[in-house]
Amino acid sequence: MSTVEQFDPTTQTLVLQQLQQNSPLIHCMTNDVVQTFTANVLLALGCSPAMVIEAEEAEQFAAIASSLLINVGTLTTERQNAMYLAVKSANVAQKPWVLDPVAVGALKFRTQFCHKLLFLQPSAIRGNASEIMALVGASQGGKGVDSLNSTDDALPAAKLLAKQVNTIVAISGEVDYITDGERIISVQGGNPLMTRVVGTGCALSAVVAACCALPGDKLTNVASACAIMKRAGEAASQRCRGTGSFIPEFLDALSRP
Amino acid sequence: MSTVEQFDPTTQTLVLQQLQQNSPLIHCMTNDVVQTFTANVLLALGCSPAMVIEAEEAEQFAAIASSLLINVGTLTTERQNAMYLAVKSANVAQKPWVLDPVAVGALKFRTQFCHKLLFLQPSAIRGNASEIMALVGASQGGKGVDSLNSTDDALPAAKLLAKQVNTIVAISGEVDYITDGERIISVQGGNPLMTRVVGTGCALSAVVAACCALPGDKLTNVASACAIMKRAGEAASQRCRGTGSFIPEFLDALSRP
Amino acid sequence: MSTVEQFDPTTQTLVLQQLQQNSPLIHCMTNDVVQTFTANVLLALGCSPAMVIEAEEAEQFAAIASSLLINVGTLTTERQNAMYLAVKSANVAQKPWVLDPVAVGALKFRTQFCHKLLFLQPSAIRGNASEIMALVGASQGGKGVDSLNSTDDALPAAKLLAKQVNTIVAISGEVDYITDGERIISVQGGNPLMTRVVGTGCALSAVVAACCALPGDKLTNVASACAIMKRAGEAASQRCRGTGSFIPEFLDALSRP
Repeated sequence: MSTVEQFDPTTQTLVLQQLQQNSPLIHCMTNDVVQTFTANVLLALGCSPAMVIEAEEAEQFAAIASSLLINVGTLTTERQNAMYLAVKSANVAQKPWVLDPVAVGALKFRTQFCHKLLFLQPSAIRGNASEIMALVGASQGGKGVDSLNSTDDALPAAKLLAKQVNTIVAISGEVDYITDGERIISVQGGNPLMTRVVGTGCALSAVVAACCALPGDKLTNVASACAIMKRAGEAASQRCRGTGSFIPEFLDALSRP
Repeated sequence: MSTVEQFDPTTQTLVLQQLQQNSPLIHCMTNDVVQTFTANVLLALGCSPAMVIEAEEAEQFAAIASSLLINVGTLTTERQNAMYLAVKSANVAQKPWVLDPVAVGALKFRTQFCHKLLFLQPSAIRGNASEIMALVGASQGGKGVDSLNSTDDALPAAKLLAKQVNTIVAISGEVDYITDGERIISVQGGNPLMTRVVGTGCALSAVVAACCALPGDKLTNVASACAIMKRAGEAASQRCRGTGSFIPEFLDALSRP
Repeated sequence: MSTVEQFDPTTQTLVLQQLQQNSPLIHCMTNDVVQTFTANVLLALGCSPAMVIEAEEAEQFAAIASSLLINVGTLTTERQNAMYLAVKSANVAQKPWVLDPVAVGALKFRTQFCHKLLFLQPSAIRGNASEIMALVGASQGGKGVDSLNSTDDALPAAKLLAKQVNTIVAISGEVDYITDGERIISVQGGNPLMTRVVGTGCALSAVVAACCALPGDKLTNVASACAIMKRAGEAASQRCRGTGSFIPEFLDALSRP
């Protein structure tokens, strides 16, 4: 049985510096609900987000961008087609791409699509516990977009998935776990308010995509993405006066050097 | 002639508690402009929003969710089809669904669609005065998404519509009226700043959908939804320094117990 | 060679008053990422935004609205068709329309579409330096949605484009230039934080569309739109504590009389 490593905070500082210096261009094919917040999270960290969704353009842009995010939150048949072409194009151009399997399990259409995408070599998969468990058939999915399981429940599924797909799996929740199927890093902290505003999980997946475009150890980079978001969540929860002011406080925390 | 009952604020407290305890899962098929704000309003109140829009998924999810919101703000042919299937599915599963007829009247495509939906037993309809009048043919619609009529003007149309469709109609404006065609409840208060940020009306319809999923008297539940939003609007307008800070202040007010 | 006129701030005050008094109805066909922010910017200034995207509705609404914004940020084949019909309809109804050629140059699909739109008499074109240069073939486009050129680099392209198309071209950046091909007005100021939140450029194009619906000199009106946004950016940057609080501060500044 693998031991769980505690995340080393010094890595986070290095990753934050690299994001600002390299300013990776992140091609986000994400759901309609979180596009603005995702763009603002990436901008706060010094990255360049670009949302390109039409099939021809998405295929072209995936080869230009530093990395690609695929989030199936408001999947449609057309967008599925565009996403598929973009992923293929990213693979040809040897650019990393990241899967966020939002609400997978309960809904057949997106579940089938995500299973298809698993064969296309994602660099990382980021989901909540129910989503990661559903991807390996260990759960029927969560309550809509919310998890019904703890990340501890999902750790065996995450390890299995990472090994099967030869990728990095990040499960986020009260404690985040990041695994390549062998090593497991845990990231503590954060705040429950992060689940009371829309998009923190989806935006985390975008930051994971950004961190996959950086040099260095991929597992540590993905863990740093998780840590960056948890630290911002803590800072924001201390300063906000409710879920509304949490949002600007969260972005403020991310944007402060 | 019906007398107008003043809204009883004690109901609001009960409804707020139930929203937090039951955390209803609200399937939102709403317009592109207000998705984020709508999700954040529902989350602030303790509900679980989920935006599922593809036809097959929407049909499946409408049967799972606690209630369904149909908002025609950025209607397309594809979305119309998905909405229709979702409403049918909600009806089969005996789940409540709510119609927000944004900018109906002036635009033929959505007007025809809304008229078709009226035959599918909405639990409630929430609109501004011009929209409600347009639904019964008493107006040509407002100025884009804004009303050109007062809610007093629209009260006869609201009563007629409620009776014809056997539903609850909520007209929101300076004074909100909620009627089942017999009883009429009025909700006073709010603040004009609520019309200077996008989405307060659309988000109210989502809260109406959430309140339709609660036990208890439906008319009072819908009136409570209106009151919850007006109280938050008042609190936010006192604390904000313009339309920008109104938004986080509004969500803060909703999220404070 | 033309001399560059400094923008006269007294014009801005007049334009702000006219926006509040006339409250023009702006038909926004814009990208998915910035719809909410665009609507809130227009509302803060006293305008009425309406996002209508379905082909039949867009054609109908473009004739009703005061002016039309076409932003190709998340273009799709369907939306392209709807935009084309809307522009044609605006022209028949003699309503101004404005083009925002987001990320044109690098991506073929939108580049071809924008070139086609140039023949349909836009009242104004607003872009960053790389976008304006790409429209006249003087650049391959920017880094995603970000410019790789200064507005000084792009001034010759802007003058050429304005003359060729017989329109007003606004290039925004550290210094904004607004030209009809003969006169050139420069607008100084703003703050780099404006590029660290998503949508300030896209929202500027919506304000340009609003200002094109006002009486008075069109070149000065468009320059006023640029100045209004730069002044709000300065005010917000002084009061904010990061990129997150910049957003409400920016809208607050716009909404204060």
